[in-house]
Amino acid sequence: MPAAPTPAEPAGLTPLLDRVSSPDDLKLLSRDQLPELTQEVRDEIVRVCSQGGLHLASSLGATDLVVALHYVLNSPRDRILFDVGHQAYAHKILTGRRRQMPTIKKEGGLSGFTKVSESPHDAITVGHASTSLANALGMALARDAQGQDHKVVAVIGDGSLTGGMALAALNTIGDMDRKMLIILNDNEMSISENVGAMNKFMRGLQVQKWFQEGEGAGKKAVEAVSKPLANFMSRAKSSTRHFFDPASVNPFAAMGLRYVGPVDGHNVQELVWLLERLLDLDGPTILHVVTRKGKGLSYAEADPIYWHGPAKFDPETGEFKPSDAYSWSAAFGDAVTELAARDPRTFVITPAMREGSGLVGYSKAHPHRYLDVGIAEEVAVTTAAGMALQGLRPIVAIYSSFLQRAYDQVLHDVAIENLNVTFAIDRAGIVGADGATHNGVFDLSYLRSIPGLHIGLPRDAAELRAMLKYAQEHPGPFAVRYPRGNTERVPEGTWPDLAWGTWERLKAGDDVVILAGGKALDYALKAAAGLDGVGVVNARFVKPLDEKMLREVAGTARAIVTVEDNTVVGGFGSAVLETLNALKLNVPVRVLGIPDEFQEHATVESVHARAGIDAQAIRTVLAELGVDVPLGV
Amino acid sequence: MPAAPTPAEPAGLTPLLDRVSSPDDLKLLSRDQLPELTQEVRDEIVRVCSQGGLHLASSLGATDLVVALHYVLNSPRDRILFDVGHQAYAHKILTGRRRQMPTIKKEGGLSGFTKVSESPHDAITVGHASTSLANALGMALARDAQGQDHKVVAVIGDGSLTGGMALAALNTIGDMDRKMLIILNDNEMSISENVGAMNKFMRGLQVQKWFQEGEGAGKKAVEAVSKPLANFMSRAKSSTRHFFDPASVNPFAAMGLRYVGPVDGHNVQELVWLLERLLDLDGPTILHVVTRKGKGLSYAEADPIYWHGPAKFDPETGEFKPSDAYSWSAAFGDAVTELAARDPRTFVITPAMREGSGLVGYSKAHPHRYLDVGIAEEVAVTTAAGMALQGLRPIVAIYSSFLQRAYDQVLHDVAIENLNVTFAIDRAGIVGADGATHNGVFDLSYLRSIPGLHIGLPRDAAELRAMLKYAQEHPGPFAVRYPRGNTERVPEGTWPDLAWGTWERLKAGDDVVILAGGKALDYALKAAAGLDGVGVVNARFVKPLDEKMLREVAGTARAIVTVEDNTVVGGFGSAVLETLNALKLNVPVRVLGIPDEFQEHATVESVHARAGIDAQAIRTVLAELGVDVPLGV
Repeated sequence: MPAAPTPAEPAGLTPLLDRVSSPDDLKLLSRDQLPELTQEVRDEIVRVCSQGGLHLASSLGATDLVVALHYVLNSPRDRILFDVGHQAYAHKILTGRRRQMPTIKKEGGLSGFTKVSESPHDAITVGHASTSLANALGMALARDAQGQDHKVVAVIGDGSLTGGMALAALNTIGDMDRKMLIILNDNEMSISENVGAMNKFMRGLQVQKWFQEGEGAGKKAVEAVSKPLANFMSRAKSSTRHFFDPASVNPFAAMGLRYVGPVDGHNVQELVWLLERLLDLDGPTILHVVTRKGKGLSYAEADPIYWHGPAKFDPETGEFKPSDAYSWSAAFGDAVTELAARDPRTFVITPAMREGSGLVGYSKAHPHRYLDVGIAEEVAVTTAAGMALQGLRPIVAIYSSFLQRAYDQVLHDVAIENLNVTFAIDRAGIVGADGATHNGVFDLSYLRSIPGLHIGLPRDAAELRAMLKYAQEHPGPFAVRYPRGNTERVPEGTWPDLAWGTWERLKAGDDVVILAGGKALDYALKAAAGLDGVGVVNARFVKPLDEKMLREVAGTARAIVTVEDNTVVGGFGSAVLETLNALKLNVPVRVLGIPDEFQEHATVESVHARAGIDAQAIRTVLAELGVDVPLGV
Repeated sequence: MPAAPTPAEPAGLTPLLDRVSSPDDLKLLSRDQLPELTQEVRDEIVRVCSQGGLHLASSLGATDLVVALHYVLNSPRDRILFDVGHQAYAHKILTGRRRQMPTIKKEGGLSGFTKVSESPHDAITVGHASTSLANALGMALARDAQGQDHKVVAVIGDGSLTGGMALAALNTIGDMDRKMLIILNDNEMSISENVGAMNKFMRGLQVQKWFQEGEGAGKKAVEAVSKPLANFMSRAKSSTRHFFDPASVNPFAAMGLRYVGPVDGHNVQELVWLLERLLDLDGPTILHVVTRKGKGLSYAEADPIYWHGPAKFDPETGEFKPSDAYSWSAAFGDAVTELAARDPRTFVITPAMREGSGLVGYSKAHPHRYLDVGIAEEVAVTTAAGMALQGLRPIVAIYSSFLQRAYDQVLHDVAIENLNVTFAIDRAGIVGADGATHNGVFDLSYLRSIPGLHIGLPRDAAELRAMLKYAQEHPGPFAVRYPRGNTERVPEGTWPDLAWGTWERLKAGDDVVILAGGKALDYALKAAAGLDGVGVVNARFVKPLDEKMLREVAGTARAIVTVEDNTVVGGFGSAVLETLNALKLNVPVRVLGIPDEFQEHATVESVHARAGIDAQAIRTVLAELGVDVPLGV
């Protein structure tokens, strides 16, 4: 059921914003009114985000910038690309979607990111980082090839900029010399603390923090910029590109981009002034804007990592109820913290997801065997390969949809030499509110075809620990996948043994047998509860399959049902079909999984119900197969 | 059959090299003998490469550097990582594999790249570019975590350095501050001409070409380096890192690396002198070495792109017999050159493979609708997405094994919005001599699970054109794959129509029906020739499958045989199994394809025979199915 759009704001609180339902309306305001409007937008964002689960801090930090961009540019003719899209709430509010903001990330409501099919003002569909620059280059080349003359502006955070494809795109952008503006929204962090040499360099640029010296200092900064800018424009055809370069060493300038900055990203009028001038320059320009994540909200400014995506909170006080649920991420973090204490070869690598992957405790307990490579999944995997070649047992902690970015590194750098690297794949399966870009429903398919890579789906924290323990002792790469959500806590020191590659019969029954692992197993058990003839097997390994048990099942069952939180194309069900076919076993199989379409944002339960893999859907299939199923689950 | 190792060199021609069968032997030579030894190694490389199909020019360019590295370092304790591995022939010769060099890239012989399982001196297994830096970082971290003290040296070309994962790794390396040496082997090109801003920057550094000013100039260069080096070493704990920086703008220094260079990469004694000093420095150092691809061989220096991987030639004169075969790459290049003349929305993008993808003619005919992004597959795909969003119809020309690097970009940036991007996938299937890293046998599996992406396998140049034409007119992403090798030329203006998603019955026969597309179809037709009951279907689409024809076939045939030049895990055969299962059609299927193991280098024919997909293997399966097959094909 689509979420109903309802107004978020109490009447009368937002007199200026009430007059803005499009970028055209925005342009009717005077420049003097922009700071007040910006504050209204920020207040609106806080109200919307207090419902929980939204990207608060980034959106607050980028609000002045977004207002300035829409004041100066003519979207959708001009193209504004927001990298990742975390920071685009003000953009949504200003482009006619204010009334729908309370529906954000809910089924039928607005996406949490920018989405081309949602609005003509959303230039790209996004969710993964570092894609805006290559997209912007493509748009600039397309514009020039078609004789058009609109502007192309990419807004990219300092975290996203350190992703490999962003750096590589910068290399081509510097070479191609097309008119475009890149705004480096530098808030000194991505989701975790930022890492990397580029980050240090950007901090170096900020030594000149004249713009933070109180009232009027921002004006001085712009004047400091404006003078060389004027000089530059008077000799626009000159080959001098580095007209304002506060440090003698500037990699952006070295790569052929005109560099301007750093400037105060919270002075909306100065940003307007600057954008009006920079947007007319030929060639690629990078504007380095310094912002503060959580800007204007004291508690969010103080702890921007928590307030990146906070739970439900009181917008006045910032009070929230801490969750006492035990997440799969926490289960993983606790397991590897213990594992590393037992085994000095353990080394955990994350691509900028320390908090999300449950690694805060680990990073403190084992700081010398912990590495955050920034938003660079390829580097995370291949650095692990190098470690494995030298005798360590690295574990790459990564979300399923982000591991997609390192598919070749898993195959080429790890699997060909059968290296001892474990991939701890979090957020596997449907993730719910983050939608199509974040669903981890392809990993079983893309990993299964890589020779020698084993894949496990633990049913609980104990089985996760058993798999991690085994993987640290035996040769070859291993991927263990677990979902977003919670599981049961296990006592410290829980390290059960596990017969590798074996399945487990959890419920007897020889008429119809359900094969499922991980999250899908919960549904299978619920569906089969109380049904005498229906067996359930914990198919905890997708590779290798337990051929022995599959033979047994196929030898007795009238039908097999496979259930998976993964696409039905090339996933677990396909593995069962392939194996039955290779073994020349002939038994009807019903393959339940995520259909071959991208799944939009909604609750996990709703997507699973629609996809037909929840307990109710499994019961329906059992009934179709002739099982006597009582009504209701 | 493994290739027999035979000596390549006439006796007496290589008096120094004859004394070197390991890096230890090398150290017994005096420094004065190194230039002569280097010349002997180079001569040996030319003799080996004259057999054709080997990486000549890169190996010649890196020979002085490799000799210097093995003279100073203690491999395998010290780790030397060669990015891509094209340039490692001298390394193989000096590490005990000289006698095996004539077997290189042949079945059972040496790999064309470095390979961990081939020699303890090969630090990484490689074939794809830009992986050495992350691997080296992992090795340095593993060394330090284990309290070891060996050296880690990565040798990376200027082309590979512009790959996203190399740049992102540099970002982390600059931050982590571990002792390691990165040697930038700058030969001003990768395989094609180099592109990108980093390349321009490196050319800028080379303005100071004092080392190319004749005899003795190299010595001056080293003296110029040595003075600040001595200064630096006397204050080794100082925070000053940029002790020798010939340009005021240096992105390496900006990223936290100590930068030294550029120095002459063909003065082996000076390289030894320099390496001895640089290897003892703490923290990450980058040594910028300028070399010439094809060094020492006049015809190779004059045209290093051709001599990157030349055909068989006369080592004295450089004479070779030009091939008059018509490759699939040429068929694609001719097709898009015509297509772009018909359709102004056509734009072709390559990640540094202009020559390999048959695009030299296209790039000249349509220079404003051609883009080479360098070795950055992710950027190639997402730049295409940006173009498609703005109304163009971009075509990404890419090798199958390199598209693995942009799996997420295909899924996240192109497929979610169903953008009009065509992927022209060359080198699909087994490639033969380049081996496991280059085989394109996973694309059907990893692409098939991406919703909305259609996949076609043309049987010839006419069908390739029909598919490209259709894809330019209809919405959504499309991948067309074709093998390494040759096809028949078609007349200019050949643009047949094609009913999308349909298969085609090429040979009647209702007893057993073979389903195959692309290269596998040739084998199927040959196998079925003269067998009355055996039908052959051109399964030219893997997605969508032609369900109508599959139903027809399943309704009449006693058995189905699927054949594919792709892994059997999740590939075409699995698609057939999934569809038959979904349609509840019950017919025995034999799935023939590449087994679930990495396939080592050998001829394409040999790998196909072993994999069991060639005509003979298909006949064997037909016989097993009860078809009356005469002996011999």
